[in-house]
Amino acid sequence: MTRLFNSGESLRPTKDEYLDSISVDCVVLSFNEGVLQVLLNKLKKSSKWMLPGGFVRMDENVDAAAQRVIQVRTGLSDVFIKQFHLFGECNRFDQEDNKNIIDSLGMTDEMAKWYLRRFVTMGYYALVEYSQIDLFVHSDEEEIDWFPLNKLPYLYGDHRDIIDIANNSIRMQLGYLPIGYQMLPEKFTMPELRMLYEAFLGKELDRRNFQRKILSVGYVKKLKEKRKVGPHKSPFLYVFDKTKYQDIEKNGMYLIPDTAIL
Amino acid sequence: MTRLFNSGESLRPTKDEYLDSISVDCVVLSFNEGVLQVLLNKLKKSSKWMLPGGFVRMDENVDAAAQRVIQVRTGLSDVFIKQFHLFGECNRFDQEDNKNIIDSLGMTDEMAKWYLRRFVTMGYYALVEYSQIDLFVHSDEEEIDWFPLNKLPYLYGDHRDIIDIANNSIRMQLGYLPIGYQMLPEKFTMPELRMLYEAFLGKELDRRNFQRKILSVGYVKKLKEKRKVGPHKSPFLYVFDKTKYQDIEKNGMYLIPDTAIL
Repeated sequence: MTRLFNSGESLRPTKDEYLDSISVDCVVLSFNEGVLQVLLNKLKKSSKWMLPGGFVRMDENVDAAAQRVIQVRTGLSDVFIKQFHLFGECNRFDQEDNKNIIDSLGMTDEMAKWYLRRFVTMGYYALVEYSQIDLFVHSDEEEIDWFPLNKLPYLYGDHRDIIDIANNSIRMQLGYLPIGYQMLPEKFTMPELRMLYEAFLGKELDRRNFQRKILSVGYVKKLKEKRKVGPHKSPFLYVFDKTKYQDIEKNGMYLIPDTAIL
Repeated sequence: MTRLFNSGESLRPTKDEYLDSISVDCVVLSFNEGVLQVLLNKLKKSSKWMLPGGFVRMDENVDAAAQRVIQVRTGLSDVFIKQFHLFGECNRFDQEDNKNIIDSLGMTDEMAKWYLRRFVTMGYYALVEYSQIDLFVHSDEEEIDWFPLNKLPYLYGDHRDIIDIANNSIRMQLGYLPIGYQMLPEKFTMPELRMLYEAFLGKELDRRNFQRKILSVGYVKKLKEKRKVGPHKSPFLYVFDKTKYQDIEKNGMYLIPDTAIL
C-alpha cells in the first residue's frame, strides 16, 4: 500500500535551503520470503528508478538528512543506518538523466543550474523489517516500491553501483558484526536467520555448522517455544540477546574467544 | 628531516577552484619503535596542530584529493588510503579556531567568508612505512611532524575525534582484514607483527596463540632467514604472501575456514 505523506517536503528543492555539492543516497534493505528487497522510487514521468535520496539542509547533520529521507518514504524514524561509502567521483552522472529530471519536475532555470552542478553523495544503508513498513510518496507525481535485489529495474545514474557496494560492505562485515536484529521479527527460526546470511553471502551455508557457530558467539538465545510450520515440522524459536548483540556491534565479533584470529 | 615541497599548492585557496561544503582530512599512521605515530601539521603562527587536510578541486575525485593532500606532505603517491567516516555534523568547529587560521594566513574577506561556511569532511586513514617517509611543508609558514598516538598535542577543531574514530575503525577491522603490509618492512619478525596488532588493540596478545592463528590464515610466510638481534636471539623472518593478502583484503578473513563464524 502506498500512501501520501504530508511531510512538508517538496520535490522541488530551493537551493538556499541546502548545502552545495553534497547529497545522501539510502539503500534501504528488508528481507521477505527469503529474498533481500531494496526500496526504490521513481518520478512517474521518468523511466528510471532511484534510491531514496536528497540534499542536506543548512542546519542539519548529514546522518539526520539520511534519516529524514527514509522517514519520508517509510514513516519510520530512527532507523538503523550506516555510512558505507562516499561516492566522490567527478562524473557520477549522465547529464541526460539529470536533464530529464529537471524537465519532469519543471525546475526554474536557477534551480536547474544548481542541480546540474557536481554533487558527491554519501551512501548509507538502512536495515528494516519488511512487515513493519508502509510505503509513502510525498507527491502523486511519484511511485515507490520494493524490488528483489536480484531483479533490479533500470536505475538512474550510478545507483546500481551504490547498491552493489552497499551489499559488498555488508557482506564484508558479516564475519565480525551481528546481523538480523533489525530485519527479522522478534522471534525467528534458525533457518530464517541462516537464510538471511545466505541471501547476503549469495551462497548456501551448512545447516549444522551455521547453527553451532552462531550459538557459540552467544548473541542468539533459544526459546522453549516452537512454531508450527507443517504437520511434522515445528522448529524452535530464537530471540536476540540485545545486550550481547549491542556489545558485539560495538566491539566486533573477534573479541569473542575462538571465533576469529585475535 | 623536513623539506619544502614545490607542489604548486598554496596555503591560501581561492574559492572558485574548489567544491563548496566538502573537505578531506587524513589520519596518516606509521609504526616506529613499537608505537603508532600520526602525522600532524601546524601553522607556525597557530597553537593548534591539524591533520593533513584540504579541499576538493572542481575536477578531482574525492579520493584523489586525499592522495594529493598526503603526497604534498610525504612525497609519496598512491598511498594505501581508506574512507572511514564522513564527519557531517553542523557545528564541527569552534569558529574562533577558524578565525585564527584566517588571520594567520591573511585571507581576503571573500575567501574568509567562504572558509567560515559549513564544511563536512571525509575522513581517510592512510597506512605508511615510517622509514620510507620524508616530511615536507609547502610553505615556510608551516611545520610538520610525527606524534605518538598516545601523546597527542593540542588539536584543532574536531581533529582529536577524527583520530579516535579512525583508530576505532581499524581496530574493528583487525578481525577480518589483514594489516601490516603497508606499515612493516618487507621482512619482519613475528614479534614485530604482534606488536603492531597490540598497538592498535591497546592490549597484549598471547605470543603463541597469535603466531598460531596468524599462520593458520595463510597470508604470512616464514623464511629460512633469521635476524640477529642479540647474542642468543635470532628470530626468524617472515614476509607477506601478497596474493593471499590481497585476496583476504577483498573478501574478508571470515571466508577462510575455521577462522571465524561463517
